[in-house]
Amino acid sequence: METGGAFGAGLGSPLLAGLLGDAELAAMLGADAEIAAILQFEVALARAAAAEGFVTDAAALALADACSGFRADHEALAAGVARDGVVMPALLAQLRQRLPAAHHSALHVGATSQDAIDTALILRLRSVLEIFEHRLHGLAARLDDLATRFGTRPLMARTRMQAALPTNVAHRINAWSRPVHDLRQNLNALLPQLLRLQLGGPVGTLDAFGPRGPAVRRRLAAALGLADAPQWHTDRGALADLAHWLSRLCGSLGKLGTDVALMAQNQPAEIALSGSGGSSSMPHKANPVRAEVLVALAKYAATLLPAMHHALLHEQERSGAAWTLEWLALPQLLQAAGSSLCSTRVLLGQVEWLGTSTDG
Amino acid sequence: METGGAFGAGLGSPLLAGLLGDAELAAMLGADAEIAAILQFEVALARAAAAEGFVTDAAALALADACSGFRADHEALAAGVARDGVVMPALLAQLRQRLPAAHHSALHVGATSQDAIDTALILRLRSVLEIFEHRLHGLAARLDDLATRFGTRPLMARTRMQAALPTNVAHRINAWSRPVHDLRQNLNALLPQLLRLQLGGPVGTLDAFGPRGPAVRRRLAAALGLADAPQWHTDRGALADLAHWLSRLCGSLGKLGTDVALMAQNQPAEIALSGSGGSSSMPHKANPVRAEVLVALAKYAATLLPAMHHALLHEQERSGAAWTLEWLALPQLLQAAGSSLCSTRVLLGQVEWLGTSTDG
Amino acid sequence: METGGAFGAGLGSPLLAGLLGDAELAAMLGADAEIAAILQFEVALARAAAAEGFVTDAAALALADACSGFRADHEALAAGVARDGVVMPALLAQLRQRLPAAHHSALHVGATSQDAIDTALILRLRSVLEIFEHRLHGLAARLDDLATRFGTRPLMARTRMQAALPTNVAHRINAWSRPVHDLRQNLNALLPQLLRLQLGGPVGTLDAFGPRGPAVRRRLAAALGLADAPQWHTDRGALADLAHWLSRLCGSLGKLGTDVALMAQNQPAEIALSGSGGSSSMPHKANPVRAEVLVALAKYAATLLPAMHHALLHEQERSGAAWTLEWLALPQLLQAAGSSLCSTRVLLGQVEWLGTSTDG
Amino acid sequence: METGGAFGAGLGSPLLAGLLGDAELAAMLGADAEIAAILQFEVALARAAAAEGFVTDAAALALADACSGFRADHEALAAGVARDGVVMPALLAQLRQRLPAAHHSALHVGATSQDAIDTALILRLRSVLEIFEHRLHGLAARLDDLATRFGTRPLMARTRMQAALPTNVAHRINAWSRPVHDLRQNLNALLPQLLRLQLGGPVGTLDAFGPRGPAVRRRLAAALGLADAPQWHTDRGALADLAHWLSRLCGSLGKLGTDVALMAQNQPAEIALSGSGGSSSMPHKANPVRAEVLVALAKYAATLLPAMHHALLHEQERSGAAWTLEWLALPQLLQAAGSSLCSTRVLLGQVEWLGTSTDG
Repeated sequence: METGGAFGAGLGSPLLAGLLGDAELAAMLGADAEIAAILQFEVALARAAAAEGFVTDAAALALADACSGFRADHEALAAGVARDGVVMPALLAQLRQRLPAAHHSALHVGATSQDAIDTALILRLRSVLEIFEHRLHGLAARLDDLATRFGTRPLMARTRMQAALPTNVAHRINAWSRPVHDLRQNLNALLPQLLRLQLGGPVGTLDAFGPRGPAVRRRLAAALGLADAPQWHTDRGALADLAHWLSRLCGSLGKLGTDVALMAQNQPAEIALSGSGGSSSMPHKANPVRAEVLVALAKYAATLLPAMHHALLHEQERSGAAWTLEWLALPQLLQAAGSSLCSTRVLLGQVEWLGTSTDG
Repeated sequence: METGGAFGAGLGSPLLAGLLGDAELAAMLGADAEIAAILQFEVALARAAAAEGFVTDAAALALADACSGFRADHEALAAGVARDGVVMPALLAQLRQRLPAAHHSALHVGATSQDAIDTALILRLRSVLEIFEHRLHGLAARLDDLATRFGTRPLMARTRMQAALPTNVAHRINAWSRPVHDLRQNLNALLPQLLRLQLGGPVGTLDAFGPRGPAVRRRLAAALGLADAPQWHTDRGALADLAHWLSRLCGSLGKLGTDVALMAQNQPAEIALSGSGGSSSMPHKANPVRAEVLVALAKYAATLLPAMHHALLHEQERSGAAWTLEWLALPQLLQAAGSSLCSTRVLLGQVEWLGTSTDG
Repeated sequence: METGGAFGAGLGSPLLAGLLGDAELAAMLGADAEIAAILQFEVALARAAAAEGFVTDAAALALADACSGFRADHEALAAGVARDGVVMPALLAQLRQRLPAAHHSALHVGATSQDAIDTALILRLRSVLEIFEHRLHGLAARLDDLATRFGTRPLMARTRMQAALPTNVAHRINAWSRPVHDLRQNLNALLPQLLRLQLGGPVGTLDAFGPRGPAVRRRLAAALGLADAPQWHTDRGALADLAHWLSRLCGSLGKLGTDVALMAQNQPAEIALSGSGGSSSMPHKANPVRAEVLVALAKYAATLLPAMHHALLHEQERSGAAWTLEWLALPQLLQAAGSSLCSTRVLLGQVEWLGTSTDG
Repeated sequence: METGGAFGAGLGSPLLAGLLGDAELAAMLGADAEIAAILQFEVALARAAAAEGFVTDAAALALADACSGFRADHEALAAGVARDGVVMPALLAQLRQRLPAAHHSALHVGATSQDAIDTALILRLRSVLEIFEHRLHGLAARLDDLATRFGTRPLMARTRMQAALPTNVAHRINAWSRPVHDLRQNLNALLPQLLRLQLGGPVGTLDAFGPRGPAVRRRLAAALGLADAPQWHTDRGALADLAHWLSRLCGSLGKLGTDVALMAQNQPAEIALSGSGGSSSMPHKANPVRAEVLVALAKYAATLLPAMHHALLHEQERSGAAWTLEWLALPQLLQAAGSSLCSTRVLLGQVEWLGTSTDG
């Protein structure tokens, strides 16, 4: 059954899952994961507020209990989002039904929807980026291994689509490896600005907690393992940085894909691809499917990137338009990057250099 | 359950379905609809080939029988796509299992994957565009109705964000209506180049049918109700035209959304929005959620549009990379347009002009 | 000396003029041409207003005299634009100095800056598009000629970067020709919505002329040879259509460039390119420079296109932001298209197919 | 006179220079500056090669002499670029004419066009970014000053285009300041990967210098004050990082512009803008021209950004297409950023908050 989810069903979508999907990532970006992260925020917020005396410990405990084992009514949430533009009012209403009235004030205390939703995003991004770092580590190792196995074989260097001078396979593989190294370094560099708690209350002034606002925020940040920082609800620069990094990742792998597709041209081919794509009408062909996928994903990610830059024009103290635009674009960018990493792994497993080794 | 489909699960996705989804459209763009359209192509192709003597009538009939009631094994198809980059080899394999061996040659006769997949896309686009035309017709009527009810009320015209000169509500509404009229006219104008059969065989030369190729194509086009035309497998201009039209539609509705959001500012507001968005922290607010959604969708569609232009660089006789890029972008553009039309309907149902009528 | 013009000096710019420039187009898009078109609008407006009795014939004549031989003070205009965001206040001030005070009221009567600037744009676009149509006509002829000379030579059709089946050169050239035919047809189709007079006065209501507004507009349209139509100052759809057409043109020529670059790979090459690019370090190379330029321009145009779609969100009765965005993007798109047509002409003059003719 | 430069003349261009231009930047990005930087590279290269024994000191000195006072023949260079796609063959030919034949081998020794052109780009980017850092420093100070002067005045916080809760002007100004701080920090962080020497020879292997290649490169890097690093001719990630930073800068200033334009709405206005834009038809208006320019530039930069990501697909050992694409897009991005900084300075000089101070 088609879910009819927002932009959920593509032309042929689930059919493309094996080619373009990333099941590991999809689970982390799904509705259940989002709600779990929001609950994590709300429980930790109540505890931080309790520690600073704004709610009772009993209320914070009751909220933790209410969230434990809570199963959201997704249909009711979707109806709420259709009306409110954000999930929080409907989600809070469902949570209140599980919470004794005496403890209602512990829920979402001093916070606004954006605090919960943005922080929940950051919590999931942290997990996603751990996976990406892990995959990049594996990719670097795989490229090193290829260089070890095939590096001394001769390869014609080509500039501007023309044979230029003879070199070897290692030279080409190194050109793929260096950006992977830089990407890992840059990922590390962008985390401090990205993995920050968002807590500001209705308009970003943290007023509900008076002079204890920073203390609540500090406690909450520590509990969630995020950096403590002033509200950034209108400053989406770190998310734009992430989007850029994701597209740069896709671009670097797209260069690899471009090169592999050109090497696989049979005139004669410089590489063979085992297990690559069959044709419905030409059984003799072995299409460089995964290389083409890398090119497509790189162009797709590059195309989408500006959405996260347009969202920097986040007017006044909260822009529903800019925020919604992020929701449309960022998941696509994350999945394009995840999918590129998956296809690169498959592709490198297929590659066999055909040049004769010059080793001996 | 998250489907894990290719780019299926967004951050919070199904939760956003009520806000950003378009259930009517999603069904037409889903996997079941795609397979049904491919089968429609295959059955009609066999009949056309039979009429020209390339397969027996019995074989064509057997294929129609095999397709009737056929339920594809989606998992096996997805595995095939992961390997081949297209669904056809795996789908044809499943169909062959339901077809007596003597009739296998009737299946996909003279065709290539792209013939089936592109034509199946066109068949579904025809249905989608009929819906869009229907919605635009309704939108034009709704705008006329608003102009009738509120048109004489005074409105301050604003240029460059500054009050300029007094005018009336009809002047503003007419500025929203005229593009709708043009969009309907342009939709009509792009159909002839878009609603064309694709049939070319492996490299676009229709060789399998020899001199009877054009005759087979003509019959197939007539059977599917599409225009008969030479193969366009490498010429994606009409799809780019469609993408442009979709983004222009989103842009025109985004202008309407921008205007409504500005009019809803309370200093004092020029319009009220009934049933609009609640806030988790500020109960006194009525957020112009659907107006903001229109702005977000317009920016999203504009951002995505270049993907379909990059796909014009469709190298040689078939580009896997360019084709895959279309699969990523076009469904998003269609759903952005569908979603914009849905939100416009909701929004116009909420609008109440607050200026005093000058009627009497 | 660098002009320091707005976005005028690129990295190395004038040096790139021979590769990327289009001198014929540049003249039509320059400041002198813009001012001339504005004067043409102002003179014709005064005459139309005179014919309807709003100004005296003497005043209209005096304005025509003042405009004849007028040389604008560009520096003063630039200073005015820096302050006002549009050229008209400063330009009108310069014109008033040449006009007897008694006739000042004939200048810009009933009009606003946008009327003059948008109409002047349309007047120049008309000339530009005539050139483009002329070039497309020539391109179609050149492709036909190539098909005649080389069409029967064998060529390996390639799908998904793999040799597929043997075909001939005509098959490939036809794939380049068909989009050119469609582009010419589509250019013709978009002119009626594009070549329209803009006249609306300060907020688009044409109030200054009272009930004679439509009559003045009709006369002015006829005088300028443009279609008479209601004001479209906030509806930029036709400009977005043009931008799309320009990018589609670049994309179609970019496909041709991609194919030529792939054919020029020497393993062995399928074509030779006479007079193509030399290398500073590898004298043996003949780089497919113009083919690469076509690819670069296609990607550039596709990338820029969304600017004209974002400009559709033209808020209220005039958006300075959206309008300025058009000024940044549209000239670039026009020049990308002009440049693509120029490089295609050069490239096709260099191509020599290397396969043996099968003619005999 | 129009230069007819590549993409030099926009619609109305020089007229827009005061509004959108950045004269300081334009000089640094012009042809003269580019040639000067290339000569700086060539002279330093000859010296480094001399120090390692590949050319004589006399030859290196002769080259330095030849470059000193050299005035390039721009027309001949443009003709060379039209043929070769790069300026180097024609420029080297002109230099050779000033150099005794005995010393010709000292020119461009071991280098390829891309080494000279990319390094010359980096040298100029270093200067440009110093200017940008200086301007950002000034902008931060100006915002601090505004916060000091107006910070305690009341301001209604607005979320989702609706009045939310009262706060003060400092809260809004801080939301503009924080991204400026982050941008300065991020600029600093991207310099190490960006300000690197490019030297690799024809295909990036630095073969001409044999085992002394790294030593030559180290000397050259030191002489130019750039980081020594392996060739990055196919890895354009650092340029994409820069493009992203430029667009993020424009986006942050575009948020400021959006806010100012909204505050300047007169119902009642929250700010006044002195010296802002006049209207040709409505003398009572004071248009927030510079605020609108910031919005336009932010959207323009965001739109252009993907060009630098598409250029990451830099095939094989040198892509003429990807490289040319950079030349088209990067200057525009640099100038959009420079222009945004200029207009922000003008705009902040115009702003006067209208709310009553709560100081006393």
